[in-house]
Amino acid sequence: MLEIRPIGVIRTPFVRAAGTPIQSSVSQGVEGRVELLPGFEDGLRDLDGFDRIWLIYFFDRASETQLVVQPYLSGINRGVFATRSPARPNHIGMSPVRLVGVQGNTLLVSDVDILDGTPLLDIKPYVPAFDHFSVEHLGWYANMSATGAVADGRFERSHRPGQHDPNI
Amino acid sequence: MLEIRPIGVIRTPFVRAAGTPIQSSVSQGVEGRVELLPGFEDGLRDLDGFDRIWLIYFFDRASETQLVVQPYLSGINRGVFATRSPARPNHIGMSPVRLVGVQGNTLLVSDVDILDGTPLLDIKPYVPAFDHFSVEHLGWYANMSATGAVADGRFERSHRPGQHDPNI
Repeated sequence: MLEIRPIGVIRTPFVRAAGTPIQSSVSQGVEGRVELLPGFEDGLRDLDGFDRIWLIYFFDRASETQLVVQPYLSGINRGVFATRSPARPNHIGMSPVRLVGVQGNTLLVSDVDILDGTPLLDIKPYVPAFDHFSVEHLGWYANMSATGAVADGRFERSHRPGQHDPNI
Repeated sequence: MLEIRPIGVIRTPFVRAAGTPIQSSVSQGVEGRVELLPGFEDGLRDLDGFDRIWLIYFFDRASETQLVVQPYLSGINRGVFATRSPARPNHIGMSPVRLVGVQGNTLLVSDVDILDGTPLLDIKPYVPAFDHFSVEHLGWYANMSATGAVADGRFERSHRPGQHDPNI
C-alpha cells in the first residue's frame, strides 16, 4: 500500500452523484472551493498566475472497483480503463477546473464536476504544451457528446442496496 | 491513509532521472510498456481504440515532499503546486502517453517521460472534449519552452547524500 493522504478537501454544490456534471467541460460556471489542510499553503505560491489547474482527488463515495462498467454516456459494457468512471481501481479522479482566485489556503475554482467533501490529493498547473494533444482515434467516445451530461447513482456507493457505508 | 495500491508497472528506457524527458510532449517516439498485474486485464477492454491515454503513477524515487521547488525549467523558487515537479505531496504523476498497442495485459506505449519500474495507479482514455482547454494565463510557464528538456537529479531520492533508500 502506498502512502497517500488527503491534503485538503473540495467543496462544491454537489452532494450526490445524481445530477453532478460528468466532466469539468460540461460544468462551466459552477463554482466551488478547494481548502488545503494547514501546512500546505507554501506550495500554492505562483499558482494564481494560471487560468486552469488539475485537481487530483479520491472518489471516496464511488462503488467498489468494477473492471467492466456501463459508462454514463453509454449503456454498453466497457473496460473501466477505457472510461472515466469513478468505480476504477484506486478511485483516483482528475479534473481540469478553472482557477478563479487564491485566498490563503483556499482556492476559488469554477467548472467543478466533483462531489462536495471529496478528499484532495494533488494540484497541478494546466499547461497546454504538456496537456494538449491532437488525437484521431477516440475509441467509443467518437461521435458521443457530453453536452449537458450529468451523472446518476450507478457508481455511488450508498446506492448499492444492503451495503453498509460508514462514510455517509 | 487511503487505500491506494499499484496495479502494474511501467517499463521505459530511463533508469535514472538525469536525462529523462520532463514531459510526454518532449519525449516523442520514446517507447515503453505498461504491464498490468494479473486480474486487471478485463479493464483494458475497448482501450485499443484510443490514440492516447493518461497514465497515473507513483513517483517512487522522488525525493521527499518539498513545498517550494526550483523546477527543471527555471532556477527560481516556485510553489510545488504551480509546477509538475515529482517532489510534490503524495508523489502522484500523470502522463498523456501515446498508445501503440494492447497485447494481453501489456500496453505498448510511446512518448514516455517516466522512470523504469514506476508503479502504475490508473489508466484513463485521453479525450479532447474533456482534456483540452484554451487558457490565456500560463503563470511562470509563459514564454518557457520545454523542447528538448530533460531532468537532472534534483528531485531523485538516491541523489540526496547520506539518505538510505531501500528501493534502489
